[in-house]
Amino acid sequence: MNYIIGMDVGTTATKGVLYDENGSQIFEMCIPYPLIQDEIGQAEEDPEVIFDAVQQIIYKLSQKANGKILAISWSSQMHSLIGLDENKKLLTNSITWADNRAEETVAKAKATGLAQIIYLHTGIPIHPMAPVYKLLWLKENNHQLYKKAKYWIGIKDYLIYRLTGEIWEDIPMAAGSGMLNLKTLTWDKEILAQLDLDTEQLPKLTNPTQIISWINDEYRQKLNLNSNTVIVLGASDGYLSTIGVAVLNKNNFALNVGTSGAVRTLVNKPVIDKKTRFFCYPANNNSYLIGGPVNNGGIIFEWARKTIFNADETAEDFLNIAQTVPAGSGGLIFHPYLGGERAPIWNADAKGSFVGLTRNHTKPQIARSVIEGIVFNLLGASHAITENIGKPQTIRVTGGFVKSNFVRQMLANVFNLPVTALKNNQSGTLAAMFLARLALGMNHELNEIGNFVKEDKVYFPNDKDVKIYQELIPIYHEVEKEISHSYQKIAAFQTRHPDLFTN
Amino acid sequence: MNYIIGMDVGTTATKGVLYDENGSQIFEMCIPYPLIQDEIGQAEEDPEVIFDAVQQIIYKLSQKANGKILAISWSSQMHSLIGLDENKKLLTNSITWADNRAEETVAKAKATGLAQIIYLHTGIPIHPMAPVYKLLWLKENNHQLYKKAKYWIGIKDYLIYRLTGEIWEDIPMAAGSGMLNLKTLTWDKEILAQLDLDTEQLPKLTNPTQIISWINDEYRQKLNLNSNTVIVLGASDGYLSTIGVAVLNKNNFALNVGTSGAVRTLVNKPVIDKKTRFFCYPANNNSYLIGGPVNNGGIIFEWARKTIFNADETAEDFLNIAQTVPAGSGGLIFHPYLGGERAPIWNADAKGSFVGLTRNHTKPQIARSVIEGIVFNLLGASHAITENIGKPQTIRVTGGFVKSNFVRQMLANVFNLPVTALKNNQSGTLAAMFLARLALGMNHELNEIGNFVKEDKVYFPNDKDVKIYQELIPIYHEVEKEISHSYQKIAAFQTRHPDLFTN
Ligand SMILES: Nc1ncnc2c1ncn2[C@@H]1O[C@H](COP(=O)(O)OP(=O)(O)OP(=O)(O)O)[C@@H](O)[C@H]1O
Ligand SMILES: Nc1ncnc2c1ncn2[C@@H]1O[C@H](COP(=O)(O)OP(=O)(O)O)[C@@H](O)[C@H]1O
Repeated sequence: MNYIIGMDVGTTATKGVLYDENGSQIFEMCIPYPLIQDEIGQAEEDPEVIFDAVQQIIYKLSQKANGKILAISWSSQMHSLIGLDENKKLLTNSITWADNRAEETVAKAKATGLAQIIYLHTGIPIHPMAPVYKLLWLKENNHQLYKKAKYWIGIKDYLIYRLTGEIWEDIPMAAGSGMLNLKTLTWDKEILAQLDLDTEQLPKLTNPTQIISWINDEYRQKLNLNSNTVIVLGASDGYLSTIGVAVLNKNNFALNVGTSGAVRTLVNKPVIDKKTRFFCYPANNNSYLIGGPVNNGGIIFEWARKTIFNADETAEDFLNIAQTVPAGSGGLIFHPYLGGERAPIWNADAKGSFVGLTRNHTKPQIARSVIEGIVFNLLGASHAITENIGKPQTIRVTGGFVKSNFVRQMLANVFNLPVTALKNNQSGTLAAMFLARLALGMNHELNEIGNFVKEDKVYFPNDKDVKIYQELIPIYHEVEKEISHSYQKIAAFQTRHPDLFTN
Repeated sequence: MNYIIGMDVGTTATKGVLYDENGSQIFEMCIPYPLIQDEIGQAEEDPEVIFDAVQQIIYKLSQKANGKILAISWSSQMHSLIGLDENKKLLTNSITWADNRAEETVAKAKATGLAQIIYLHTGIPIHPMAPVYKLLWLKENNHQLYKKAKYWIGIKDYLIYRLTGEIWEDIPMAAGSGMLNLKTLTWDKEILAQLDLDTEQLPKLTNPTQIISWINDEYRQKLNLNSNTVIVLGASDGYLSTIGVAVLNKNNFALNVGTSGAVRTLVNKPVIDKKTRFFCYPANNNSYLIGGPVNNGGIIFEWARKTIFNADETAEDFLNIAQTVPAGSGGLIFHPYLGGERAPIWNADAKGSFVGLTRNHTKPQIARSVIEGIVFNLLGASHAITENIGKPQTIRVTGGFVKSNFVRQMLANVFNLPVTALKNNQSGTLAAMFLARLALGMNHELNEIGNFVKEDKVYFPNDKDVKIYQELIPIYHEVEKEISHSYQKIAAFQTRHPDLFTN
C-alpha cells in the first residue's frame, strides 16, 4: 500500500494527515507553535519553528507508512508575509493574517482610493491582513528592511523552498496576497508599481497540482522519504476547505466555524461586491472562491462559557442550558464582535454587546443569545454573498462550533436552508490529498472529490423557529448599526486605558 | 416617658417605628403584603389588607409603649388611587404607582398636549403612575365604575379615614396626584374639568402637621391607644425621606437607592423642566420637592447577582469581585434599564444592555460595570435637576444599595461631589415622627430635624477615578441614545412573544 500526506499549516498549529491509496485517513498528527505578539497589533510566527514542526510530522507519518509516501501535498493559512535577502535567508518572521499593524496604512489607502483599486483588481478585502497592505506599511515604516528584502513570499512557499530549494506559489494562495490580478492571473503591474516591486521579487506562479519532484537529499534522508516521493504544491486553506467539503459551485455554501469562521463558495467568473464585503480569489481561469472570513466563531462561545458561565462548566453544559429556552432568547440580542470583525461588517473597532435585557432574562437566555448572535453574524456574512449571486440550495458545515445537533439545527433555522453536516472535519488536508491524486493521475476530475467526502446528517429548517428568527434578525442588524456609531469612541477609550482591565 | 409612632406605608410592606420623647428609635416592625397583578400592567393592593397590617403594627408598638402614645404620624407611598362610593365604601383596590395600565392614555395625552399642560400646572411627570392618568384611563375604559365613584382618594387617606372617619390629604401627597395646582396649592379646576370631577370628590387639603384628635372609639380600644393619642396627618414618603435626611434646600441632594431609587431636593419656588424630566411637588407655598424616581436601583444589582453570577453568591461576593478591577470596567458600559426607566430617560420600553465587550472582559469587569451603570444612571437623574438649579454641595445617601464603602466611594467619584452616608435608614418614619413633634409643639422649626439625623461617614471624590468616569459617562449616554431608537422594536417583539422566556 502507498500513502499520501496532506499537510495543513495553520496559524496555531500544523496538522498532518496520512491517507492511504484509497483516500482513507490512517493517522493524524498536530504540532502547535506560538504567536509572537511582543508589540500591540503584532502577530508573527517563526518560519523555522514551523519548519521544525513540519519535519517532525512528515517524519512521523512516513514512519507510519514505512516510507511509502507518494506525495506530500499542502494546505496553508493565507495572507502570511516573509521577507528574504538576496541569499534567500530570512529577514523577517512570518507576519500572519492576524497582524494588524497595517491598520493605519489601510485607512490611508481607503482615503486615497487606492484600497478600492486594489479590491477591484485583486478581490482582496480592504483589511490589514493582506500582504499588499503589510508591504505598504513596511515600505513606509521600515524602509531599510523593505529595500534590503530581495524576495517576499508566504509561509507555505518558505516551507517548500526549504525542502526543495524552489519558490513557487499556487494561484489560490497568491490571490490572498492582494497583488494577483483577478483577470490575468498574473502579478498586478499597477499594484507592484505602487510597491516599487518587480515580478522577480515574488514567487513564480503555477497551479495547485504542480509537482516538484526534487526534494533536497538531506531532507529526503532525514525525513525517511523514498526516492519517488514528490511535493505537490497544494493551495490555500480557504480554497481547499471549500472543495474539501465538495462545495464546487454556487449551489452550495461551505460554512466552517472553528475558533473563527468563514463562509465560502465557488463561482465561475469574478464577482466583486459594491460594498467590498467579501473576497473574490481566483483558483484558476474559470473558478473563483468568494466568501467572507468571520473573526467571532467558537472563540466567542469559549469566552462566554468561561466568563458568563464558570470555567468548570463544559461546552456541553452551556449547550444544554441554552436549549432549555426557545428560539429568540426572549428578545435578547447578542453581537459577537468581541474581537472586532471582518465579514460582514469589516470593522476592527467593533465590540460585543447584549441588548434587550429585561428582568425576566436568566442565564439560559443569555447562553442561547450568545449562540444565536454568533449564528446571526454568520448569516450576515453569507447575505453579502447571496445578494450578489443568489441563495444556495444547502449549506455544508464543518468545525468545532457546529459539532452539536442544537447548533446545526439553529443554523438551518437561521439560514432557512437545509444544513448538511460532514463527518470528516479535515477538509483542508483531504483536499490537499485529493490534489495530489489529481497531480499523480489517480483521479481526473475535481468533482470526484465528492467520493471522499462523508456526509453525517441533513438538518431541515423548522417553521416556528424560522419565523421567530425572521422577526429578530432585522432588529439584530438595526441595533448593531446604531451601536456602531460608538465603536470608535469605545475603542479609543479602551486603547487609551489598557490598564483598566486589571488592578 | 411618652412615645410617638412613625408609620411608613410602603408598596411592599408597612413599617412602624416607635420613637421615645427624645426622638430615639425604640422598636421597629414591618408587615409585608402582596401586589395584585392578575392582568398585564396591573399593580393593585387591597386597602383592607394594608389596614390590617397597620392595626397590627400600632397595637404592637403601643403595647411596647404601655399605651403611652402621643401621636401616630404618617409617611406613605405616593400616587395610589382608591375609588369610594357615596357611603365611602371601597369600589376599587388601591391602584399603586407601579400600575401602568394607563400607558396608552398617557401616550394619547402626550399627543394632544394635555400631558404637557398637566405637567406645567402640577409638576407631575408624564407617566402612568400618576392618579390623574389613571382617572383618565378609568373614565374612558370603565365609565360605569367611574360614574359610580363618589370619592377618589389615596391609601394614606383611606387608612386615616378608617381610624377617624375623616378624609384629609396633605399638600405634599396631593401634589403626587397630578391634580394639585403648583401655584394655588388647590385642586386644579382645569384638570378637574377634563376629568368631569368636582373638588368635593377629592380629599380636603391641609398641612402635614394637621392634627386629627378624634379616633373612632372602636380602634382606640382595640389598638390600645389612650384618650390623648392623636393622628398627625404626615406626608408623602418622597417628601419625608428628603427632610428625614436633613436635606432642606438645594445645597444638598438626597439620594435613596433601595430596590428602586430617587434623587430629590427642596427649592423655594416651583422649577419646571423644559424636557419634563423631573417632578416638582409643592410641600407648602415656599418649599417644593423636585426630583426624579429611578426604577433600576438595587433590583438590578440583585438581578445581576443571581443571573450573571450564581444565586449562591452573596451581595458581598459580588462587590468583592467587582472591586478587583479599576474604575471604568475596561470600557464596558452597562445600561440598567431592565425594568424600563422613569428618571432620567422616561421610557417604559427601555431595555438593559452591555456594550463594549472585548475578549479581555471577565466576570469582575462585568460585575463592576453593572454597579457603574446603576450609578451613572443615578447621575443622569440628578443632571436633569442640576441643569436647572445648579450643583449641590454634597449628596446625602441612604438605602440598601449604598451600604458598602465601595458603592459610596463610587458615588462620590461619579458625582464628583462629597457623599455623606447616614446611619438611620428610616428617614421616612423619622420625619413623620418629627412632624408630630412640630404639631405637638415639641419642636418649632423644620431645620431642627437635623438634630435627629445621624451621619455615618463622608466620602470624597478620588481624582483618578473622577477622570476615568468623566471620559466614560458621555459615551454611556451616547450609546444609550443610539440604542434607544430600537427599544420600541425590541419591546414590541417581547410583547408579541411572551412565551419566549421559557420552554
Ligand atoms: N460543543 C461545542 N459547541 C460549540 N462550539 C464548540 C464546541 N466545542 C468546542 N467548540 C468551539 O470550537 C472551537 C474549536 O473548533 P475547531 O477545532 O474547529 O477550531 P480551530 O481549528 O482551532 O479553528 P479555525 O478553524 O478557526 O482555525 C473553539 O473555539 C470552541 O470554543
Ligand atoms: N451590599 C449591597 N450592595 C448593594 N446593594 C445591595 C446590597 N445589599 C442589598 N442590596 C440591594 O438593596 C436593595 C434593598 O434595599 P432597601 O433599601 O432595603 O430597599 P427597599 O426598601 O427599597 O425595598 C435590594 O434591591 C438589594 O439588591
